Amino acid sequence: MKKSHKVFATVATAALLLTAGVGAAAMATPAPAPAAGSASASASDIQPGAGTVVAQNRITVGASADAVRAALAKCQADNLPFVTVALVDRFGTVQALLRGDNAAEHTIEAAKQKAYTAAAFGAPTSELAKRITGNGPGIHDLPGTLFLPGGVPLKVDGVSVAGIGVGGAPDGKLDEACAAAGAAAVTGAEG
Amino acid sequence: MKKSHKVFATVATAALLLTAGVGAAAMATPAPAPAAGSASASASDIQPGAGTVVAQNRITVGASADAVRAALAKCQADNLPFVTVALVDRFGTVQALLRGDNAAEHTIEAAKQKAYTAAAFGAPTSELAKRITGNGPGIHDLPGTLFLPGGVPLKVDGVSVAGIGVGGAPDGKLDEACAAAGAAAVTGAEG
Amino acid sequence: MKKSHKVFATVATAALLLTAGVGAAAMATPAPAPAAGSASASASDIQPGAGTVVAQNRITVGASADAVRAALAKCQADNLPFVTVALVDRFGTVQALLRGDNAAEHTIEAAKQKAYTAAAFGAPTSELAKRITGNGPGIHDLPGTLFLPGGVPLKVDGVSVAGIGVGGAPDGKLDEACAAAGAAAVTGAEG
Amino acid sequence: MKKSHKVFATVATAALLLTAGVGAAAMATPAPAPAAGSASASASDIQPGAGTVVAQNRITVGASADAVRAALAKCQADNLPFVTVALVDRFGTVQALLRGDNAAEHTIEAAKQKAYTAAAFGAPTSELAKRITGNGPGIHDLPGTLFLPGGVPLKVDGVSVAGIGVGGAPDGKLDEACAAAGAAAVTGAEG
Amino acid sequence: MKKSHKVFATVATAALLLTAGVGAAAMATPAPAPAAGSASASASDIQPGAGTVVAQNRITVGASADAVRAALAKCQADNLPFVTVALVDRFGTVQALLRGDNAAEHTIEAAKQKAYTAAAFGAPTSELAKRITGNGPGIHDLPGTLFLPGGVPLKVDGVSVAGIGVGGAPDGKLDEACAAAGAAAVTGAEG
Amino acid sequence: MKKSHKVFATVATAALLLTAGVGAAAMATPAPAPAAGSASASASDIQPGAGTVVAQNRITVGASADAVRAALAKCQADNLPFVTVALVDRFGTVQALLRGDNAAEHTIEAAKQKAYTAAAFGAPTSELAKRITGNGPGIHDLPGTLFLPGGVPLKVDGVSVAGIGVGGAPDGKLDEACAAAGAAAVTGAEG
Amino acid sequence: MKKSHKVFATVATAALLLTAGVGAAAMATPAPAPAAGSASASASDIQPGAGTVVAQNRITVGASADAVRAALAKCQADNLPFVTVALVDRFGTVQALLRGDNAAEHTIEAAKQKAYTAAAFGAPTSELAKRITGNGPGIHDLPGTLFLPGGVPLKVDGVSVAGIGVGGAPDGKLDEACAAAGAAAVTGAEG
Amino acid sequence: MKKSHKVFATVATAALLLTAGVGAAAMATPAPAPAAGSASASASDIQPGAGTVVAQNRITVGASADAVRAALAKCQADNLPFVTVALVDRFGTVQALLRGDNAAEHTIEAAKQKAYTAAAFGAPTSELAKRITGNGPGIHDLPGTLFLPGGVPLKVDGVSVAGIGVGGAPDGKLDEACAAAGAAAVTGAEG
Repeated sequence: MKKSHKVFATVATAALLLTAGVGAAAMATPAPAPAAGSASASASDIQPGAGTVVAQNRITVGASADAVRAALAKCQADNLPFVTVALVDRFGTVQALLRGDNAAEHTIEAAKQKAYTAAAFGAPTSELAKRITGNGPGIHDLPGTLFLPGGVPLKVDGVSVAGIGVGGAPDGKLDEACAAAGAAAVTGAEG
Repeated sequence: MKKSHKVFATVATAALLLTAGVGAAAMATPAPAPAAGSASASASDIQPGAGTVVAQNRITVGASADAVRAALAKCQADNLPFVTVALVDRFGTVQALLRGDNAAEHTIEAAKQKAYTAAAFGAPTSELAKRITGNGPGIHDLPGTLFLPGGVPLKVDGVSVAGIGVGGAPDGKLDEACAAAGAAAVTGAEG
Repeated sequence: MKKSHKVFATVATAALLLTAGVGAAAMATPAPAPAAGSASASASDIQPGAGTVVAQNRITVGASADAVRAALAKCQADNLPFVTVALVDRFGTVQALLRGDNAAEHTIEAAKQKAYTAAAFGAPTSELAKRITGNGPGIHDLPGTLFLPGGVPLKVDGVSVAGIGVGGAPDGKLDEACAAAGAAAVTGAEG
Repeated sequence: MKKSHKVFATVATAALLLTAGVGAAAMATPAPAPAAGSASASASDIQPGAGTVVAQNRITVGASADAVRAALAKCQADNLPFVTVALVDRFGTVQALLRGDNAAEHTIEAAKQKAYTAAAFGAPTSELAKRITGNGPGIHDLPGTLFLPGGVPLKVDGVSVAGIGVGGAPDGKLDEACAAAGAAAVTGAEG
Repeated sequence: MKKSHKVFATVATAALLLTAGVGAAAMATPAPAPAAGSASASASDIQPGAGTVVAQNRITVGASADAVRAALAKCQADNLPFVTVALVDRFGTVQALLRGDNAAEHTIEAAKQKAYTAAAFGAPTSELAKRITGNGPGIHDLPGTLFLPGGVPLKVDGVSVAGIGVGGAPDGKLDEACAAAGAAAVTGAEG
Repeated sequence: MKKSHKVFATVATAALLLTAGVGAAAMATPAPAPAAGSASASASDIQPGAGTVVAQNRITVGASADAVRAALAKCQADNLPFVTVALVDRFGTVQALLRGDNAAEHTIEAAKQKAYTAAAFGAPTSELAKRITGNGPGIHDLPGTLFLPGGVPLKVDGVSVAGIGVGGAPDGKLDEACAAAGAAAVTGAEG
Repeated sequence: MKKSHKVFATVATAALLLTAGVGAAAMATPAPAPAAGSASASASDIQPGAGTVVAQNRITVGASADAVRAALAKCQADNLPFVTVALVDRFGTVQALLRGDNAAEHTIEAAKQKAYTAAAFGAPTSELAKRITGNGPGIHDLPGTLFLPGGVPLKVDGVSVAGIGVGGAPDGKLDEACAAAGAAAVTGAEG
Repeated sequence: MKKSHKVFATVATAALLLTAGVGAAAMATPAPAPAAGSASASASDIQPGAGTVVAQNRITVGASADAVRAALAKCQADNLPFVTVALVDRFGTVQALLRGDNAAEHTIEAAKQKAYTAAAFGAPTSELAKRITGNGPGIHDLPGTLFLPGGVPLKVDGVSVAGIGVGGAPDGKLDEACAAAGAAAVTGAEG
């Protein structure tokens, strides 16, 4: 698989939609040869490179497991063992989750929603919460979101690809400190 | 972004989980330099390459739009305009959807579920349905699946990354013919 | 109302999707003048006629009310007052509903689902139930459907546009007799 | 299609409900002859014209597909490719949907709800949001609605029949500009 | 059925719970003889009267049908045909529902929720909405309720047993006028 | 609107059903005077007796509490303490529930559904389960029902008004023995 | 089973997570001998004591039944028989529930949510409600919670293990008085 | 906290429910003194020991994390990295979850349901699946359960307290081998 085509592909796609149809464009871009030795590739496979395929970075399950473990350890060290930690992707789908001993039920959903909110908006939920002012409708009305401190995004090349969220501490800032510790375990920050 | 690291990363991750912790391994693998000129990358970004990031191929929205349009066109040509066509990814999240004129309500969910089932199991739902025999529990009990003909997978390098599903024709085989036409619009198969 | 125009519109739409884009076609077909005296029509309204609008027949609320009332009356006359009667459209959305005295809770959903199934497949549910044979996956797996007797479709010009369903009688055939009476009140059949 | 008949039909229905029963009225109004050559029409069909049937205008699937494609193209051109665009009818049922590359999960539901809100209330959601003032209960409490900018209605003869909604841009006004572009592709406005 | 026993039963029950067990009390109160000729009564039936049974008044389906029809007729006469009218009981279960032509989807749930809110709190929702002041938590947070004008309770002997709700008018007060007309059709008020 | 017509309509409706039920009885039984000192009765109340009100027998909360307690005690005596017992009415709404120590989660919903099924069909679920034969669609497809042994109906004057259900025992017959003990505590049967 | 190990176990677990793996630690701590005469213990059972098992206190079903009965009795004595009382654990799972005669539907969910909120936050909901100020996002946005008076926590050794909630009184303070009476029946407080 | 009282408490509770009220029994059993130094215990706390409190063993979060990690590692070693592993308690609430790279969406729910089914019934799901024979209603109809191989229970002193489930392998037996490996990491079995 020739990955360098992927970056181009993303740009090509944007342009593609502005043109009439995929047919001509696909013809103009020679399809790359399938990877040699790819046992399961078949003639009906989609040829990456012609604007039809885009590669999306994701956090591996190994790193996800490390992140939630580190976040929980931070909370335990802070004497807050009764939290839940979740790491979710841009689609809101959970990748890793740990519920601390005696964590209440709602902490599961709270952790997921904080994680998702950070992943979707690319900023810590403590920052995002500040954007909500006044009484009227706002982004906090968006389905599946929770604008309480405790969620931090995980980015690759500046693009938010996931989020880690913590729920259950008496103060959201304490939740977010744990989430940040989980993120640091993956990014290698503050090391 | 150096994509060639991604393939290695996947293998590294699998091995990583079998070892004790990510810390040492991450240290052993020099983090790649961030892409030059990446305006939004920051120090806290995850460094791709150290087993923490994996790239997943996805169908672009442009190709998705073409696929559902082609599938519906096939059904219209077959005098079956009252179907719904959906393209969903491995997470069951819809990427493109078209509901034909006068298509009944359930065709929307049916199309999504057929598409998802094909995406998740990597085979046309007509094939998958044959695997279900007897009366007892079986894979048709799995949540979010529908083992009726009408769904076909979309693969890249032999890996199923999405599915396209059609619902509403009087016979599932007719649905699947439209789904296959949608897939062909992306893969360039059959002509 | 001139129905023959409707059929044409549908055909025009089908053809439209097979061509490249709506722009050219829309240009080729002169937009009809807006109805004189239409106070709320504005320049940004969609011009019917250019393949962008299709008229769909629906049962009026008046006829819907009459239908469910007639169906319930039939059940009451048959000494089956504890049923629920529902009339739903092709989108599964209820138009009229009456729950008989002492009808159990599930009769509400059962009536709606029978009505929807008949509306979606264009046949009485007693007929549809016969199509299900064997143990494997089948149309009864489709979401929102219920293949038990008690639902009958309502058609206009041979097109199924709604369904009426009854639930709660000890035998589904008794339910369906009431549903048929409800349909007859609208179609003017048998009388 | 002769729209003036439609208006009459609606009025007739309203009057009908104020009278005692459909029977007499149906008798008084001669049922129109079925369309010649209508193969599937049967004696039990509902006769349109007698206050029992009303025609409702809908956006065709072809126009719906064009609208969401145009809306997404506008967002891509505005460097906002990570949005979802949805077109839904008055029943909240989706007719067409495109999810841009890397659009977050909630944008799907947000797009649908904005589209529905505009369709149901017949105005852009940016306008509707202004109607909400104070802290008390208000129309934003209505189920299935979302009063954030990004939705515009689609009207035929001044009647709102559908809506197009966009979600995912950092500012709702940017979403709405894309939605408006989608609407313009159907109405031919600002052309 | 002897109604006078029912009123006593309710009082007896309240007292009963404050005592130790049902056994003794049941023995002390002679069970009434079963209704003569009650074909299906058996030895294992519960004997009404001994604090174990309470009679609850409900609106008949006939009256429910009349109420929603009258409410819709009022809205039609007021040139508001696009509303939904629902009558629900104290358990939130719908008894009768009519959706006006072209009523948007959310009007169904809005009508039910307004009806339920009025039934549960025993006052018109326009009155109830006034009780909500300030920004904090309040009764509008209660699940299944909607504190917008348009719902009126139906009472028997001063006890709220059901509610009728209307949704879809541009102003909730207009909705509530229709709901009141529906209630008047049952109570015979404003004669 | 002439209200006197409405009253007539109401009576007509009652008669329509009819014959069997509240209409004639209501005529024969003079409506009781409102309770003296009933502060909340008002002129707008519905007058019971004119076919608009029907009284439905219900199990009191005191008897409900006794029933679930007796059922659980039986299971505890049988060395089956890990069950859940629920009593629900004809609307599927729970009136009393006890979850035994260490009862698994699904026993809650199982107990409710068994109770409802017995209440709705007026027979023990062990009897009802026998009615299901063959592979095709059947009453077990009805929403909210569960045709496993463990539910028994509670009847007044031969009419099923509620059900008591038990879930969690290794054999459904053991569940049903407990449910029967709960019913006996209310009916005074066997003893 | 040697319970004294449990207290240690909880502390050990917290520490454990901060270390690399369970393997070494488990080896270092000799597993306690299984309880003599434990008929069902097998070789594959988890050995309590090695940081893998934690004991959590719960309210017994007997005490739960007494609590809800006492709470309802208080409400009945206060002339508020139309409430629902629920006792739920830290996981939001109901342990006991009684719905008073004529209690409206929403009181069931309201009672559960108040009970859960008190259980999760370890304080009466009347206290918790005071913590919510201003208009922005807050803890009242957490899923499954309800910050209205009427819920009180149940604690063992200072740890909140459950909650009891009441819904349906015209004033939340009245609800909470009943809930407190239910709690007192278990704690033996006030006398 | 004196844990030895807990065992007695469980027995006492069972007996308690068979007697009339908790009051007398509670008086008869002297409440144990609160643990010395318990800072947060208050006068209103429940006194453990008097039949009101029962201790339930649970898997710690540390052990839960180890279990899911071990299960995933086994699947990765078996070349099945695309699975999800979940550990849930008797209440179906997740304690730990890891979703492997490229695991399809339904594997999350499948893993949870298999884990729950094993936890609730105290046996591997491969064993439980064998108990289902014939076509009629059966335990597979119980809500929240999934009788496909891949789940194993976790027991303490012979009591099932949790379950670990795996979903996504092409054959359920492969899933279950991973689940067993996860269980072994906690029980220390086989090795």
